[in-house]
Amino acid sequence: MILLDGKSLSKKILTNLSLEIRNLKSDVRLDIIIVGDNPSSLKYVELKQQQASSIGIGGQIHRLAQDCNTKTVIDLINKLNNDPSVTGLMVQLPLPPQINTNDVLSSINIEKDVDGLNPINLSILFQKNSQGIPSATSLGIIKLLEEYEIDISGKNAVIIGRSPEVGLPLFAQLLAKNATATICHSYTQNLSQIISQADILISAIGKPNSFGKEYVKKDAVVVDVGFGVDPNTGRVGGDFIFDRIKDVASFISPVPGGVGPMTVASLLSNTVTIAKNSL
Amino acid sequence: MILLDGKSLSKKILTNLSLEIRNLKSDVRLDIIIVGDNPSSLKYVELKQQQASSIGIGGQIHRLAQDCNTKTVIDLINKLNNDPSVTGLMVQLPLPPQINTNDVLSSINIEKDVDGLNPINLSILFQKNSQGIPSATSLGIIKLLEEYEIDISGKNAVIIGRSPEVGLPLFAQLLAKNATATICHSYTQNLSQIISQADILISAIGKPNSFGKEYVKKDAVVVDVGFGVDPNTGRVGGDFIFDRIKDVASFISPVPGGVGPMTVASLLSNTVTIAKNSL
Repeated sequence: MILLDGKSLSKKILTNLSLEIRNLKSDVRLDIIIVGDNPSSLKYVELKQQQASSIGIGGQIHRLAQDCNTKTVIDLINKLNNDPSVTGLMVQLPLPPQINTNDVLSSINIEKDVDGLNPINLSILFQKNSQGIPSATSLGIIKLLEEYEIDISGKNAVIIGRSPEVGLPLFAQLLAKNATATICHSYTQNLSQIISQADILISAIGKPNSFGKEYVKKDAVVVDVGFGVDPNTGRVGGDFIFDRIKDVASFISPVPGGVGPMTVASLLSNTVTIAKNSL
Repeated sequence: MILLDGKSLSKKILTNLSLEIRNLKSDVRLDIIIVGDNPSSLKYVELKQQQASSIGIGGQIHRLAQDCNTKTVIDLINKLNNDPSVTGLMVQLPLPPQINTNDVLSSINIEKDVDGLNPINLSILFQKNSQGIPSATSLGIIKLLEEYEIDISGKNAVIIGRSPEVGLPLFAQLLAKNATATICHSYTQNLSQIISQADILISAIGKPNSFGKEYVKKDAVVVDVGFGVDPNTGRVGGDFIFDRIKDVASFISPVPGGVGPMTVASLLSNTVTIAKNSL
């Protein structure tokens, strides 16, 4: 079994991005909006800004109150949409329940949508020869598969989870690369039967240790997008039970160190792509 | 085996629509753009207008020359987008190769997009509590399944074909109804294995007699969107070999008389929905 080492690959990507930025000779700026004070979201946003800053991307974190309304968020987005000094912007999810997430994401100018979550960017991903901006997580996964030269075309790719952030854009990207693509979710009957036939198996449900070897086909490629704390062990882990699948799968993305760092690297890669396109 | 009788259901739908239109007390108008003189496309467009007219929907067929360019088509669409007397409009596909189909479909005002083929309508279909306009074919299939009270939630639904007209919107609609949904296509490896596990099996490849009973699970629901002339027999048929699957499947939509009439009925149903929404 070979580890899909997102930590190493993300470092390589960041190094390349910093060279590209130096050659751009114009400022690149990524602004991040965060609503409320969820500690793990705040930490994640700071990590993104830190990594951005380390490769020469400037930008500001905009904090809004936990009890603010949809209009307040959209007004701020419109301001940043119209600010020519802002290269790209993103809104950290999840948003508090009183806010209409879909309206918020739809208001991001698709040409500044570094996280690729405006629904229009999803529809563009489904078009042939797409120039759409994929969601950062989905792009990170595709880059990871490509780095390890994993065949996608014609393969049976099964995604567990149908979120607009991961499941749907990943489905569109895998289909564009000619995989046979399936989405499973909480209503799926015969889940074990369906996923045990996957050549490429991706889970993004965020429930640690949900799947063991009984779910994984011999030599399958396993991509673990889950990230959570197992209430039994108190340890951070992914959706798969690593120790049980490590002798069955051919490739596994570990948690941590797999998809997580790739998501941040891809967010910054989207930012640089936008900066280059707007020259 | 029970036939999914699209002919009868479409008649029922048309009767109901004609009553709704009478109660609307405002004119409903569907305009259709057709480029070139492909005889089967022309015939199909005339059928649509005939059926529209039979239930009280007015409208015009706009014919453009085979060698016209993308701009000519989009200019006409913009004129109809801005004409308040036009309730809905559609462009008959396929378009000649010199025309950018995606640009054409993207220029249809989504509030008049009766065929549901503007890519934005696809992204809306993927959203929760969607108010998007589904493609006429995909809506017709869902209505047919609902008429026969076929369980969709949790079932394994497999679609063969990934066109923006059928495969993609149908995928979105089946997923919204909580099916486990898969898209197969020409690159799919192990096609027979994947589709032989489908509870609901839909083919939209348009190659007559492609699939026999070796592909169909016992008691599967088979929806045949194919429509073509078998070069060997000269007869019109669907993607499935009806005689070979009729003792295996629980439900089959026949060709002709299944999905075809439902597509036209759903186009007109989308038109009436738009008319009601704009009151």
